[in-house]
Amino acid sequence: MKQIELSFSNSSTTFLFNASFAAVTTFTAIDNTVIITDENVFNKHKRTFKGWQTIVLPAGEQFKNQATIDNIINQLISLGANRKTFLVGVGGGVVTDITGYVAGIYMRGLSFGFVPTSILAMVDASIGGKNGIDVGLYKNMVGLIRQPAFLLYDYSLLSSLPRAEWINGFAEIIKHAAIKDAAMFRMLEQHKLIDFKKDTKLLDKLIQRNALLKAKVVQEDEFEQGDRKLLNFGHTFGHAIENSYQLPHGHAVTIGMIVAAVFSEVYKKFADTPRLTKLIQQYGLPVYQAFNAKKVLAVMQSDKKKVKDEMHYVLLAKIGKAVVQTIPVSDIEKMVLQLAKNKA
Amino acid sequence: MKQIELSFSNSSTTFLFNASFAAVTTFTAIDNTVIITDENVFNKHKRTFKGWQTIVLPAGEQFKNQATIDNIINQLISLGANRKTFLVGVGGGVVTDITGYVAGIYMRGLSFGFVPTSILAMVDASIGGKNGIDVGLYKNMVGLIRQPAFLLYDYSLLSSLPRAEWINGFAEIIKHAAIKDAAMFRMLEQHKLIDFKKDTKLLDKLIQRNALLKAKVVQEDEFEQGDRKLLNFGHTFGHAIENSYQLPHGHAVTIGMIVAAVFSEVYKKFADTPRLTKLIQQYGLPVYQAFNAKKVLAVMQSDKKKVKDEMHYVLLAKIGKAVVQTIPVSDIEKMVLQLAKNKA
Ligand SMILES: NC(=O)c1ccc[n+]([C@@H]2O[C@H](COP(=O)([O-])OP(=O)(O)OC[C@H]3O[C@@H](n4cnc5c(N)ncnc54)[C@H](O)[C@@H]3O)[C@@H](O)[C@H]2O)c1
Ligand SMILES: NC(=O)c1ccc[n+]([C@@H]2O[C@H](COP(=O)([O-])OP(=O)(O)OC[C@H]3O[C@@H](n4cnc5c(N)ncnc54)[C@H](O)[C@@H]3O)[C@@H](O)[C@H]2O)c1
Repeated sequence: MKQIELSFSNSSTTFLFNASFAAVTTFTAIDNTVIITDENVFNKHKRTFKGWQTIVLPAGEQFKNQATIDNIINQLISLGANRKTFLVGVGGGVVTDITGYVAGIYMRGLSFGFVPTSILAMVDASIGGKNGIDVGLYKNMVGLIRQPAFLLYDYSLLSSLPRAEWINGFAEIIKHAAIKDAAMFRMLEQHKLIDFKKDTKLLDKLIQRNALLKAKVVQEDEFEQGDRKLLNFGHTFGHAIENSYQLPHGHAVTIGMIVAAVFSEVYKKFADTPRLTKLIQQYGLPVYQAFNAKKVLAVMQSDKKKVKDEMHYVLLAKIGKAVVQTIPVSDIEKMVLQLAKNKA
Repeated sequence: MKQIELSFSNSSTTFLFNASFAAVTTFTAIDNTVIITDENVFNKHKRTFKGWQTIVLPAGEQFKNQATIDNIINQLISLGANRKTFLVGVGGGVVTDITGYVAGIYMRGLSFGFVPTSILAMVDASIGGKNGIDVGLYKNMVGLIRQPAFLLYDYSLLSSLPRAEWINGFAEIIKHAAIKDAAMFRMLEQHKLIDFKKDTKLLDKLIQRNALLKAKVVQEDEFEQGDRKLLNFGHTFGHAIENSYQLPHGHAVTIGMIVAAVFSEVYKKFADTPRLTKLIQQYGLPVYQAFNAKKVLAVMQSDKKKVKDEMHYVLLAKIGKAVVQTIPVSDIEKMVLQLAKNKA
């Protein structure tokens, strides 16, 4: 077990790596706590939840919405939850996003912690305090920024994580390596997914490295004025195709990373698109999806990151070094049309 | 016009007293702003809203709920509101509570300001950053604490405020005087409501005094650990009868103040219940409501301010000086039963 404490602007978060779920009780008393999880995690780990008051949600992004929030609030009221109640989100990014949001608004704010159970949640979603829900097709349209009191990593919970979700999570790991950590990129090149599944020590090192990488970016830029934007690498195009083509988020992101890499060739003389392509494929992730350029461009332009006629686009100067580039929307349009033609 | 800037823990608020609505443009550009108001305010002041993008809500506490928030969010999406959009709530406390809440959660937080149009909103609801909505019968069950960028006071908007709402607002003014400002209490004793309606200068003085009194209490205790609790004077009992007997909030509060005054006689040798009674009646507000003790006690005990077998109750040591007293729930029960018997 390894404990690290990081301070954010208004509060601090304790990271407990390679811990056991039971250690949650070092942060909050059982009878003062309500756990929020989803049916997949709950059904595979029933014994873990024994003795805890637990709200079990239907699983999946389609339930990351206001109806689920209403449901949780009603359950909290029924359980007699008050301002001193502590919430713990145990699950993937959907559960941690929802739990953080409910904790932010119920009675104007409860304390909360997370036990992420998917790779994606461990290295990304549970870290940084962003939370929220979707509104119709608009992802994360409503939410807050508020840090959890703790993040507890119990790798034994990953035993039940479906292979497809492992792969999904590695998309963000590759993203982290590409934007900030060339050494990790090389390390990933030397391994396969199965190595991390088999070797908890190796996995722990990788998870820690990624969790702290993200945490530090957030720490320096909690409210997304600067460096935090780099974490959007692959996400602008990724988000635009994710909905339209019903792609898993990780797939959308790796496809988006390749698009950004191609743009980086133009604006940053980036030369390592083939290396990035190879690594993405090595971890079972896609690098291309046929798409309708008009449709995708329309979504990209409604994206939150758009500023008037230009877009802030995250590009790579080299492997391990991302930068934000301002690109005229007209250029984006040309490049996207070209990409749609090239490979369709 | 008088401008005062007050800092809170994370941000600061500019108070503009005796200003004109048009001065909103000193804070935010018209085309970047969405106004949220209610149908009563909108219909009486159509010219004021001319040229502004405006979301008009149905009026009343019964619409301070999630359905209204959903409606606003959908309208904001249709209007293309983004992270840079500025929201201005123009209305009573329902509108300012709702606007503050939506501003807190839409795209994880927009900047916002208020133009309070009821006495209650001017001296109380719009100040202090608390916002939120009701969930069923539970008032303000969901919400945030987040400060507005500005509070603009245009007294000409009060021309259309119904007399009953003027009276309602004076309940909180009397509360402020009772808990913190003996000189204001004496000043109120020397006047009637009509004096303030007729004399804008006198009104301005009163509103400023009250707004700054509340703002300073909040400033010193933004997250309600100490002095901010004093603002709950009259509200514990008040909330308990407000729903059950469909009372206007101001009426519930003045009745609750008398209950708290009677408790203060027991615990603090408070001797001025008659003086408080007289002032309340002088402003057209009630001091008693027949009630069912069991029903009221049940609501009081589900109140957020309850801690186990004791309650923190705000009492008066004297006019102008409130204190928090811990009272055993069993004593509260006895006193409330007695009150129900005495006067029913
Ligand atoms: N807040 C942020 O900063 C941030 C960052 C990235 C992503 N996100 C959000 O995270 C979400 C995606 O995260 P996710 O991929 O973890 O989604 P998820 O929570 O839907 O989990 C994916 C699937 O795996 C299942 N699962 C999770 N852990 C399991 C386990 N241990 N055993 C068995 N099944 C398990 C879930 O039930 C679900 O079916 C999205 O909603 C995204 O918006 C948030
Ligand atoms: N956030 C806080 O700290 C805080 C503090 C106290 C009260 N509140 C909240 O404030 C609300 C009560 O405030 P309120 O009494 O202003 O309620 P309100 O907003 O419902 O206004 C009362 C009535 O007056 C009308 N009105 C308001 N201004 C008008 C004008 N200038 N002309 C014509 N009609 C006008 C409204 O349409 C409504 O019908 C409650 O929901 C309460 O919870 C919040």
